[in-house]
Amino acid sequence: MTAPLKPQSVGELAAHVSGRVVGNESVLINAVAELGSAGENEIAYVEDEKFFEAAKASRASCLIAPKEFVSLMNGAAPAFIEVAKPKLAFALIAEILHPQKRRQPFIHESAAIAKTADLDLTVFIGPHVSIGDRSRIGAGTRIEAGVTIGDHVSIGRDCVLHPGVVLYDNVTIGDGVILHAGVCVGADGFGYVRGDVSYHKFPQVGTVVIEDDVELGAYTCVDRAALGQTRIGRGTKLDNMVHVGHNCDIGERVVIAAQTGISGSVTIEDDCVIGGQVGFGDHIRVLSGAVIGSKAGILPGKIVRPGVWWGIPIQPLDEYKRLNAHLGHLPEMRKEIKDLKKQLEELRKKD
Amino acid sequence: MTAPLKPQSVGELAAHVSGRVVGNESVLINAVAELGSAGENEIAYVEDEKFFEAAKASRASCLIAPKEFVSLMNGAAPAFIEVAKPKLAFALIAEILHPQKRRQPFIHESAAIAKTADLDLTVFIGPHVSIGDRSRIGAGTRIEAGVTIGDHVSIGRDCVLHPGVVLYDNVTIGDGVILHAGVCVGADGFGYVRGDVSYHKFPQVGTVVIEDDVELGAYTCVDRAALGQTRIGRGTKLDNMVHVGHNCDIGERVVIAAQTGISGSVTIEDDCVIGGQVGFGDHIRVLSGAVIGSKAGILPGKIVRPGVWWGIPIQPLDEYKRLNAHLGHLPEMRKEIKDLKKQLEELRKKD
Amino acid sequence: MTAPLKPQSVGELAAHVSGRVVGNESVLINAVAELGSAGENEIAYVEDEKFFEAAKASRASCLIAPKEFVSLMNGAAPAFIEVAKPKLAFALIAEILHPQKRRQPFIHESAAIAKTADLDLTVFIGPHVSIGDRSRIGAGTRIEAGVTIGDHVSIGRDCVLHPGVVLYDNVTIGDGVILHAGVCVGADGFGYVRGDVSYHKFPQVGTVVIEDDVELGAYTCVDRAALGQTRIGRGTKLDNMVHVGHNCDIGERVVIAAQTGISGSVTIEDDCVIGGQVGFGDHIRVLSGAVIGSKAGILPGKIVRPGVWWGIPIQPLDEYKRLNAHLGHLPEMRKEIKDLKKQLEELRKKD
Repeated sequence: MTAPLKPQSVGELAAHVSGRVVGNESVLINAVAELGSAGENEIAYVEDEKFFEAAKASRASCLIAPKEFVSLMNGAAPAFIEVAKPKLAFALIAEILHPQKRRQPFIHESAAIAKTADLDLTVFIGPHVSIGDRSRIGAGTRIEAGVTIGDHVSIGRDCVLHPGVVLYDNVTIGDGVILHAGVCVGADGFGYVRGDVSYHKFPQVGTVVIEDDVELGAYTCVDRAALGQTRIGRGTKLDNMVHVGHNCDIGERVVIAAQTGISGSVTIEDDCVIGGQVGFGDHIRVLSGAVIGSKAGILPGKIVRPGVWWGIPIQPLDEYKRLNAHLGHLPEMRKEIKDLKKQLEELRKKD
Repeated sequence: MTAPLKPQSVGELAAHVSGRVVGNESVLINAVAELGSAGENEIAYVEDEKFFEAAKASRASCLIAPKEFVSLMNGAAPAFIEVAKPKLAFALIAEILHPQKRRQPFIHESAAIAKTADLDLTVFIGPHVSIGDRSRIGAGTRIEAGVTIGDHVSIGRDCVLHPGVVLYDNVTIGDGVILHAGVCVGADGFGYVRGDVSYHKFPQVGTVVIEDDVELGAYTCVDRAALGQTRIGRGTKLDNMVHVGHNCDIGERVVIAAQTGISGSVTIEDDCVIGGQVGFGDHIRVLSGAVIGSKAGILPGKIVRPGVWWGIPIQPLDEYKRLNAHLGHLPEMRKEIKDLKKQLEELRKKD
Repeated sequence: MTAPLKPQSVGELAAHVSGRVVGNESVLINAVAELGSAGENEIAYVEDEKFFEAAKASRASCLIAPKEFVSLMNGAAPAFIEVAKPKLAFALIAEILHPQKRRQPFIHESAAIAKTADLDLTVFIGPHVSIGDRSRIGAGTRIEAGVTIGDHVSIGRDCVLHPGVVLYDNVTIGDGVILHAGVCVGADGFGYVRGDVSYHKFPQVGTVVIEDDVELGAYTCVDRAALGQTRIGRGTKLDNMVHVGHNCDIGERVVIAAQTGISGSVTIEDDCVIGGQVGFGDHIRVLSGAVIGSKAGILPGKIVRPGVWWGIPIQPLDEYKRLNAHLGHLPEMRKEIKDLKKQLEELRKKD
């Protein structure tokens, strides 16, 4: 667990999340923890009623909790912070107690930086990094060991590039972006034209734009556009090993779980939620607010409307469930048909 | 977008693809572009009739188009190149206007190269590369930053190894091969023998051969053979994050989309096309010319004949569609059976 | 193929696996090989009766075989090693003939090692490695080129970290662990809380523990716990590109094939076997001894009992097969219902 900066009082933490303190506001807190394992000087949260019993037994120095719990439980912990959304408050308090690692401005002597690159004075550049011609890196950005940045790349302020990230030439990264280990932005899209005897590469000469506050998981790949640009919108979060094909346009505040694969020229509008291992054919449009369950498969060219979708190929979740229930009756249905045939036969004989 | 070498005239470009110029053959072109966004000095293509209207509205300086379109549209653009296969011509022209990045022969001072390695004088070796004992690299090959090449590796001419590629010991790479970021060739295959209390590694002491003109997408992994060799045939193209298990034999001009996983000892013959997220059990043989749809699953030992296949487990696409149509009738079938039972009951009572 | 240390006699090899020599025990062996391609001074194995014919034709200098084969075939090869489990004996003998690459203790001059790091004198550190503050590396461990190790990481004895491995801060690796190229341990788990306008990161401040004798395939990712720890138990083997989410607890001697994805807080107990491309929802518990087929999907919160499971969502394999068989009868069932309706109609008319 990362070391906290310095302990904070319950009063200070409550003020940060506009919560009401019940109990001793001077109790000191130095770490977030789970209800079950939290101990002295640690803070935990309880949101769902089904964890109220666990919360009563918790040895945390402070509990973040909703009003109904606090009124019920006054005295169960040295201090409470009463808020409407305890989990959100817990996340915001964790940001204070466990801030992202800070690095002093520094350039490791082993870094290979092109003379024409333009680095803010406050950047951190770790060992074995390489940065190409005319690339630009903004204030406070941290580039960890072994990152490779091509030519004419633009990276904003306060980004973190974890070890082994690869940025091909001519891509653009916004402010506050977090790229986990090995993220690859700007590799050639997968497009070929079959000639008489072999495949020729369809031109992959477009760009990629990653907007502000995006976070990409380890080894997630965002391919460069054939022509034009591939885009990941502001505040969007992708898990590990997601594949985003050429010319995709992913909107703002989209969440995509691990190992999902998105073919070329797919549009996913703002605020969609996509499960893990989902597969998208090309030229799909997912309308704002759609939710697609894990392992779903979507046929090329499909328009996915708002609502919850499931299955291969996708159906509305309700229909999927209904069909699945019917499927379970198949053995019984076969038996019934057999019986009907027999009975009918008997009736006929009587006739 | 990569900068073009120098503008080319429509006449020069047409000659390159054996096309006929209609209009002004001295118009200069410096970039390929999409129909919709193309402007002055740019060239676009139109192949499908459904884009003829968009092509008429295009502001491209030159359009590559089939005969029927050119005769229809003479005058809509300053120049046309008339060819039978416009998309292919567009790809070939893009190769001229946007050639792959060239690097002058160079070895970065930070590269760690074994004394016994044998490098052609014309290679480019970027920063933080390491090359092991007795490895050999051919003329014109470009090794980008952070690539690791083991011992006794052979790499041909005119290859490009993008940042972070890892080649284990004893693997062989042909001529004109492109390996995108983080491609891993030669890691141990996944094979264990259960002993009394734990697993023992089945020997993974074979090799990998990647033939000429292969392109492998970012983080694609080709495992070494247990015994013998794993092979990727000439001109084959794999997308990002494809897994190729030990002892697989992938033929020539095979195309495999992203995130497909291929278990050990699978053979895929020449000219097959495989979608994304497909899963192969071990010891499968896919016969030349088969096409397997995305997300399909193929059981171990299966022989897949030419034709189009779909589903889990795979079926011929026609059968899959038929079965899916029947599935949609399940609710109705259950109702019909109920009705039949009721009617039969009534008939019996009458009896 | 890796060069063997030195030839061994059949007698020495037999002693190592407690096997009985039939034939000439002084025959020298220098490599393992497949039945079909084995030649002089090579050893192959035959276990299954269906390969007895191939074994008879083998030109191997020694065959490892079960009693029934040896008694049948005396004389077919210069020497036999008779054992109850030939494949296991073959694996054990391969460990002797093809030992893992040994590296002399060495630290490459390009490695960037924090002053506060604590390295055993016998470690091998390749080029372009970086090791953070207060990290500790045990005796005989081999760190290949381009590996990045964060702060306060603990690595045991006799491990191999292949090129490009990334270990985030505060993770713990046991003894005898093999991490293939690009394995990523300790990246942030995927957890966010939706605020009024955007997502906030749920704290990802826990750790990861990888126990002794674990092997992880290329680009496999094991995320750090939100709070608490993510664990991979002793002797467990994961293939390439497996995703293990935050707070997962994977037991001992578990085997997981390539591209499987495991969501947060999943428990997989000892001795389970999981196929490739399987998807796990969160908070699943897989009980010891369960086997889950490739491409299966398991819904969140599910408890998976011992036995063989298949499909999306998973069912016991027997039920899955039965249901699939019924599915195949759907077209026929529809026809039967139609016939029944017609016959019933006729009966009624007669009435």
